[in-house]
Amino acid sequence: MPKLNENFLTLEKNYLFITIAEKINKFKTENPDKIDRIIRMGIGDVTLPIAPAVVAAVKKGADEMGVKETFKGYEDSGAGYDFLKQAVSGYYKGFGVEIDANEIRINDGAKSDCGNIVDIFDNSNVILLTDPVYPVYADSNKMSGRKIIYAASNEENNFSAMPDLDVACDIIYLCSPNNPTGSAYTAEQLKIWINYARKNNAIIIYDAAYEAFITDPDIPRSIFAIDGARECAIEMCSLSKTAGFTGMRCGYTVIPKELKAGDVPVSGIWGRRQGSKFNGVSYPVQCGAAAVFTDEGQMQIKKNIAYYQENAKIIAATMDKLGYKYTGGKNSPYIWFKCPNGMGSWEYFDYLLNELQVVGTPGEGFGENGKGWFRLTAFGDREKTEEAMIRLVNA
Amino acid sequence: MPKLNENFLTLEKNYLFITIAEKINKFKTENPDKIDRIIRMGIGDVTLPIAPAVVAAVKKGADEMGVKETFKGYEDSGAGYDFLKQAVSGYYKGFGVEIDANEIRINDGAKSDCGNIVDIFDNSNVILLTDPVYPVYADSNKMSGRKIIYAASNEENNFSAMPDLDVACDIIYLCSPNNPTGSAYTAEQLKIWINYARKNNAIIIYDAAYEAFITDPDIPRSIFAIDGARECAIEMCSLSKTAGFTGMRCGYTVIPKELKAGDVPVSGIWGRRQGSKFNGVSYPVQCGAAAVFTDEGQMQIKKNIAYYQENAKIIAATMDKLGYKYTGGKNSPYIWFKCPNGMGSWEYFDYLLNELQVVGTPGEGFGENGKGWFRLTAFGDREKTEEAMIRLVNA
Repeated sequence: MPKLNENFLTLEKNYLFITIAEKINKFKTENPDKIDRIIRMGIGDVTLPIAPAVVAAVKKGADEMGVKETFKGYEDSGAGYDFLKQAVSGYYKGFGVEIDANEIRINDGAKSDCGNIVDIFDNSNVILLTDPVYPVYADSNKMSGRKIIYAASNEENNFSAMPDLDVACDIIYLCSPNNPTGSAYTAEQLKIWINYARKNNAIIIYDAAYEAFITDPDIPRSIFAIDGARECAIEMCSLSKTAGFTGMRCGYTVIPKELKAGDVPVSGIWGRRQGSKFNGVSYPVQCGAAAVFTDEGQMQIKKNIAYYQENAKIIAATMDKLGYKYTGGKNSPYIWFKCPNGMGSWEYFDYLLNELQVVGTPGEGFGENGKGWFRLTAFGDREKTEEAMIRLVNA
Repeated sequence: MPKLNENFLTLEKNYLFITIAEKINKFKTENPDKIDRIIRMGIGDVTLPIAPAVVAAVKKGADEMGVKETFKGYEDSGAGYDFLKQAVSGYYKGFGVEIDANEIRINDGAKSDCGNIVDIFDNSNVILLTDPVYPVYADSNKMSGRKIIYAASNEENNFSAMPDLDVACDIIYLCSPNNPTGSAYTAEQLKIWINYARKNNAIIIYDAAYEAFITDPDIPRSIFAIDGARECAIEMCSLSKTAGFTGMRCGYTVIPKELKAGDVPVSGIWGRRQGSKFNGVSYPVQCGAAAVFTDEGQMQIKKNIAYYQENAKIIAATMDKLGYKYTGGKNSPYIWFKCPNGMGSWEYFDYLLNELQVVGTPGEGFGENGKGWFRLTAFGDREKTEEAMIRLVNA
């Protein structure tokens, strides 16, 4: 057998959500009478169906694939059809950010690009993550044996980590609105990160997967709303949370023309990587994604987002009522709160599952600073969300 | 800017097919009157539309996504829905190979897995490729700076390279039926490769993307038809050529339970990698893929494959008539032939484009042993294929 990449053996054996699934299964086996009572507010998966305009567009795309004259084989570039890149570019324009269609690459969801983009950088680069963190950023760099350092998001800074100007790094991951903490950077805070990155010759990989949940006007929808970002940032976004695409699989990555390593454009190197290891997104899926950006599509998905935002408000109001400290709930589908009575994250997880049959995500699963904190998502049913909150209040 | 992975700077700037596209565009600009005469037999892309049973299944899947009760979010495993894995398992059974559904992972086409699978192995491993070779195998390993050695496929061995027992290696890529040479390994030849791999503790990454074109009963459809393969091989297959999925994007990778590194199952490590860097294939696409394996789907796709096979016969008959040496055409959609009059591959490419307006692929683009050879594909229109052959005969 060839020598394994030993970095894999140092990873936690299970992805966080698999551990949670196992705990739920155990509970179900031991409590068959309580299975129907379980309310899932753990994994950040959406529950509302795909918008009708999107379904119609996927079906139209499928029909085109069935007719010789409109059949589509390999995409020339694998970077996405122009009609979709133009639609994404127009979407950015809608909140005042100019992105050329050629700076956009369509992908099968942010997770793949988030994980694979680091292939184009040397393993000697130092990675800066905020902690707590979406595990994918850490794991994909641990797989290459890269050194990872952390900036703490904690109660003191409202779970919005800021850079330590005395610490150097090469690649920074930021997620705003944040998974898991629901906090979101203001324009001013992002400017500080950009200045820090440029001083360090570092790049920022900016995960904007939750941008559609932003309501405050001083929270930017894109890092490219801030001066200087085009020289140091790559932005990744996804239709998973924006339009319920978790099972449909489509997202996009923006690499500005200005982003260069010496005189080599970063987008060219990433294109070379993708040219050898990716063949583009399914044509009917791209048709569906383009429909998200039509007037009809926007109207329909905004209705869904408003539904989740209302859930978030209901959860936040419950936190207020219970006197729990929390972040998120506003500008974000996540509510991140301090476990009551000094309980640990996993202890509280077990309590919620066993006593109230509510499933959340232990903050500890996202890192050191998540210890004693807990995440609930607003992506569930209204009725079940309300019922879960009643159980919390009455407990 | 972080330090780049410098291996990227050593790669050829352009993927072969981009260079070809540029040459065609130049010809078009200089010869606007001849644009309509161009017949493309270069890139291995299919031209017949997706089968009606598949289109219907994609549309049904899209409809399900639009209804709350049948909506699908994230897949639990990201390895594919059980209904599709069972269908693939049944397909293998149809040609006498037992593969458990749990040994199958569904992907967005063989290219991604082919490129990404090496992430789980150390960069110190030595890679053995046959030459000429599908560029993806070479490029994805050059990107990690791995040492690559080659086994020559040439006129003497009918472009079916066999291992040199005195040469050691860790990871072997085999593609049978072969891209680009159209040659296909017999059971006896595969047995020699398997024995060689096991003696070296090497693994074989077996690309079976063209298995649906096999007609000879002594050419195995899967490496797992041969004893000993389950202990040393990973098989990758795709619906791209089987069912015209080049723009639909779906394939599968088989890692047998027996394949272990020490006591660690390789499928587990690959699953851990995919768990962090991949979120599964679009649900409607998986529905379409499953329809390929129904009786109706099989009947429809076999009609398409027969059409391409007839094209291959027409091209092969022309080679016979012209007295050109060639491999493939049988068990394969590719015809690989020696350029006439001692011409070089690119010289012959230019001649065909400029004089006959027929586009093929220069063998040299696939490696040293492709020099002076040329690839034509049978994936085109019948009428255009016939017309191109008439031009060759009359030239």
